[in-house]
Amino acid sequence: MPKRHWEDFKPGAVDVYGPRLVTREEIVAFAAEFDPQPMHLDETAAAGTLLGGLAASGWHSCCILMRIIADGFINETSSMGAPGVDEVRWLKPLRPGTRVRVRTTVLETRASNSRPEIGFVKCLFELLDEQDGVLTTLTSPLMIRRRQAGAGA
Amino acid sequence: MPKRHWEDFKPGAVDVYGPRLVTREEIVAFAAEFDPQPMHLDETAAAGTLLGGLAASGWHSCCILMRIIADGFINETSSMGAPGVDEVRWLKPLRPGTRVRVRTTVLETRASNSRPEIGFVKCLFELLDEQDGVLTTLTSPLMIRRRQAGAGA
Repeated sequence: MPKRHWEDFKPGAVDVYGPRLVTREEIVAFAAEFDPQPMHLDETAAAGTLLGGLAASGWHSCCILMRIIADGFINETSSMGAPGVDEVRWLKPLRPGTRVRVRTTVLETRASNSRPEIGFVKCLFELLDEQDGVLTTLTSPLMIRRRQAGAGA
Repeated sequence: MPKRHWEDFKPGAVDVYGPRLVTREEIVAFAAEFDPQPMHLDETAAAGTLLGGLAASGWHSCCILMRIIADGFINETSSMGAPGVDEVRWLKPLRPGTRVRVRTTVLETRASNSRPEIGFVKCLFELLDEQDGVLTTLTSPLMIRRRQAGAGA
């Protein structure tokens, strides 16, 4: 049974999950499968790009972030997925050998008008490097089952 | 040498790329690596979720879309990446066995104020199923090198 429900998420709450080491091997393998652009595949080609050297696909950053929060709290939460992502910003390159973490901030919560058993939890997720530099940000409205359906928001 | 530059993208232009068959095997493999939630891993568990059956992770949909556009036009374009994604909407589940395509619509183009060699091309990308049903939408401002740096926008 999930430990956390919609009622357990409070605006302003901050948690940090991880770390996870991101290797050159996985950066190149991901890019070869999903985003085969030179800056994600080869150091020499990457040196001449805006990234200034080999770096992970932005989509790979998102996927690593997803895995960290799945292990961190989603899989012990009565999560029902998300309708999408409001915004993704790839602020700094994710380099091989970086040990990343994810900082999760609850921005707001609201009960669903149409589904009394569900609430929304809008979160800001930040992918951090070892120096707390923010590499990627994304905001997403998670759908989470309520402990008590239909109770007041 | 890239065939397409910033000047070659015109607002309103529509192209369709693909198809690509999405298998159950890859849906489950992706989920196991990046998004290990029941609705992406197992038919029986998925049947009781909002998705109503096994479906790809939303991030997997984005990654498949990325690969289709990389093969479709990005890798023959003087692309310099993207600063992020403005919005992602996961509208319908991506089911095993779906043959997907991507419809790309150029929403707007503008020259960069700070970098005369670059322009932005804001695109709407739609992941389509065989019946032209829209599964996922995302909008992103691509950065693309200009054929003639500094010429008027």
